[in-house]
Amino acid sequence: MQFTKKDVLDIESLEPSEISLILDTARGMKEISERPVKKVPTLRGKTIVLFFQEPSTRTKLSFDTAAKRLSADSISISKSSSSIVKGETLIDTAKNLEAMKPDVIVLRHPSSGAPHLISKYVNASVINAGDGIHAHPSQALLDMMSVREKKGKIEGLKISIIGDIAHSRVARSDIIGFSKMGATVSICAPETMIPMGIEKLGCTVSPNIETCVEGADVVMMLRIQKERQGNILFPTEREYAALFGLNKTRLALAKKDVIVMHPGPMNRGVEISSDVADGQCSVILEQVTNGVALRMALFYLVAGGNRHADSD
Amino acid sequence: MQFTKKDVLDIESLEPSEISLILDTARGMKEISERPVKKVPTLRGKTIVLFFQEPSTRTKLSFDTAAKRLSADSISISKSSSSIVKGETLIDTAKNLEAMKPDVIVLRHPSSGAPHLISKYVNASVINAGDGIHAHPSQALLDMMSVREKKGKIEGLKISIIGDIAHSRVARSDIIGFSKMGATVSICAPETMIPMGIEKLGCTVSPNIETCVEGADVVMMLRIQKERQGNILFPTEREYAALFGLNKTRLALAKKDVIVMHPGPMNRGVEISSDVADGQCSVILEQVTNGVALRMALFYLVAGGNRHADSD
Amino acid sequence: MQFTKKDVLDIESLEPSEISLILDTARGMKEISERPVKKVPTLRGKTIVLFFQEPSTRTKLSFDTAAKRLSADSISISKSSSSIVKGETLIDTAKNLEAMKPDVIVLRHPSSGAPHLISKYVNASVINAGDGIHAHPSQALLDMMSVREKKGKIEGLKISIIGDIAHSRVARSDIIGFSKMGATVSICAPETMIPMGIEKLGCTVSPNIETCVEGADVVMMLRIQKERQGNILFPTEREYAALFGLNKTRLALAKKDVIVMHPGPMNRGVEISSDVADGQCSVILEQVTNGVALRMALFYLVAGGNRHADSD
Repeated sequence: MQFTKKDVLDIESLEPSEISLILDTARGMKEISERPVKKVPTLRGKTIVLFFQEPSTRTKLSFDTAAKRLSADSISISKSSSSIVKGETLIDTAKNLEAMKPDVIVLRHPSSGAPHLISKYVNASVINAGDGIHAHPSQALLDMMSVREKKGKIEGLKISIIGDIAHSRVARSDIIGFSKMGATVSICAPETMIPMGIEKLGCTVSPNIETCVEGADVVMMLRIQKERQGNILFPTEREYAALFGLNKTRLALAKKDVIVMHPGPMNRGVEISSDVADGQCSVILEQVTNGVALRMALFYLVAGGNRHADSD
Repeated sequence: MQFTKKDVLDIESLEPSEISLILDTARGMKEISERPVKKVPTLRGKTIVLFFQEPSTRTKLSFDTAAKRLSADSISISKSSSSIVKGETLIDTAKNLEAMKPDVIVLRHPSSGAPHLISKYVNASVINAGDGIHAHPSQALLDMMSVREKKGKIEGLKISIIGDIAHSRVARSDIIGFSKMGATVSICAPETMIPMGIEKLGCTVSPNIETCVEGADVVMMLRIQKERQGNILFPTEREYAALFGLNKTRLALAKKDVIVMHPGPMNRGVEISSDVADGQCSVILEQVTNGVALRMALFYLVAGGNRHADSD
Repeated sequence: MQFTKKDVLDIESLEPSEISLILDTARGMKEISERPVKKVPTLRGKTIVLFFQEPSTRTKLSFDTAAKRLSADSISISKSSSSIVKGETLIDTAKNLEAMKPDVIVLRHPSSGAPHLISKYVNASVINAGDGIHAHPSQALLDMMSVREKKGKIEGLKISIIGDIAHSRVARSDIIGFSKMGATVSICAPETMIPMGIEKLGCTVSPNIETCVEGADVVMMLRIQKERQGNILFPTEREYAALFGLNKTRLALAKKDVIVMHPGPMNRGVEISSDVADGQCSVILEQVTNGVALRMALFYLVAGGNRHADSD
């Protein structure tokens, strides 16, 4: 099967068969990072621009590592060095980037929809690395990869997602992705953190964390994103932990072989207790490892042998 | 012909034959960025330091891309990470860089003359990527490259440069470069934005934009650099656009086959209207593409086969 | 001899034979930076993360250059881009880095002991690039390399270290290293800049700079680290220079073939006069050159052929 999309902008626009192709490709990529020489020449001579307009450690590092393990040249533009401070429009910035002939532009942007906008103005492939509160497709894909790796499948599983759904582009992409692949998604959060009409994405809303976790195959905790809360902060961290935090007692309501996920960075003692975060059910660090492989797969599929017939 | 200069500090110090050699070399480099594998091993094992002491997107990205497409190792030092915050002199910083044996130092600096100063203390080639309000030779060279590509020549053309000449190192380098290559350069700006004695660089001052544009082969608009204006701001952006902005009506005064240039980033609706910026006469994005090729040429000429006899 | 340590965290934990191995290896690496193609494929496919939580020019540039000259992929995380702003613990950050399978993590951190802490949570080799006021082993090693290069030995030499010992991780690592290698170390500083019990590291405290410098083979000046002084600033820079600055008169008290060192960046006219800094005895810039070679040696020893049997 061929991957025919130019861009990876969100999960909505991916067919289940395309998601499967991405996950299969990522599984193959994972082994490269285990080698003594963790590098293949697949994308030698390709230019990948990492354009991050919001702070990021793990996502940027993951994309950068993925690019280098495929021998691509990755070039970073940070917010502070950007012409955006000089009043240029995003479209002009995009066209200027394009004029330098990159193969892929990885964009993280505070405005929802920014990657979709620029994708229309560039021939380069655009990968959305998180836009506003809209989407974070590479995170959802690595989450699906992690679930499939541990459970052998996604279809038919009960996935529970708990936390600040309203401010989480991860949650939106995960809900869409897991339900598209045939899982049942149940969410739970304080009322102010559940956006109206969220059910339309393909999930049900549980009245409390116990109901949500009960019988779950996968429990995914979201971090309280203090930096996105504005004035609708939940009273206190302690109250949040008491009502919506994952601890051993609550986790015992899930299936015996439940796995616990978190996109990181964690607020230990708030949305997740340390014994659960570091416990045997946790696949949190495996998610990070899979993130590199998944991004290698995305780069390969949009810029590599599949879409283009390279001479190299 | 051999390129015998160690550094590229300004346009003044380049002979017309050296400018021609640079432009010829850049034309050859341009094709590399069009290949599926856009990389040649020419500068493998060379170290290029990108030392930017002012914010920059396109110039830094362009130099970085150019370095990587020639397989050089490029290493960035940003302002915030610099020892200059610890009170070290620029000369000491230069000597310290030199001690790490770089082949090329690309310097952008807020002080006019900084690249000239450090070039005396290092064996590495120094390329000026913009110093204060003094010079921006790689921009002027890519502008000349773009004109020659579109017009087949520079000699005998009428080049009109309109905007904030006083704060523009681009304008200074362009005026010197185009007049050196045999073009007639006409400039136009609000009185406060025309430095005294600018005619000595090799241009005439037009009383208004209409006279300046009339019969032009090339119209180059400069951005209003709000961040450099201090207290001598032109009244309002609207007034500026009315008196000095390029629009279709004014452009109609130029030659039929006029090309429109802008070093970017543009303030749309201020110095240039969107229909002109995006119109058929515009070569603004081609300038960006040429910028990568031109900088590849500079790296090649100062660090590559021409100046040094490498064993590789 | 094999280098069997996973990490390079401080000088205390290195045996004299290990220090000698590092210095020997670095001597061999130095020549690579003199070649036209200053790059060897030794660490191709290795991932080196540069994790600098304090501003740095020369140390980061030196590590980055060293990584690239060995063909490793170096990936930078700067303070501003770090998840630490999102409240993640250092241990979680370390585990997340580890999950991306780096071979080496170079850490600079404001907290003393941070590299030791993370080294327990990662399989990657950790190299301490400066932690708080504790240790800066790569600087001490390059200092030892420079002394051995100029003097042919370390044992039996008199090493004088003058300046802000209390706030200097360089001083601590140097005192321990030089005394471990058989030199006699004498220190001198204003009373407020001498930590209690410093003699236990293996040095004597001189009552004044003249006594300290007298008969010295090596005089190492430390910079007054204004950014670390808090409220215990020495009265004025002028008084500091008068009482503790190195000038020609004082240097004349040392051995005829004395060498003068400084870890940089220098405050000229404060701890060192310009004629001494630029004089014939100065090896200050040679230290910088040796720094790249020394860091290449560290990377090679922890990640290269010696510790791992690579298939490449």
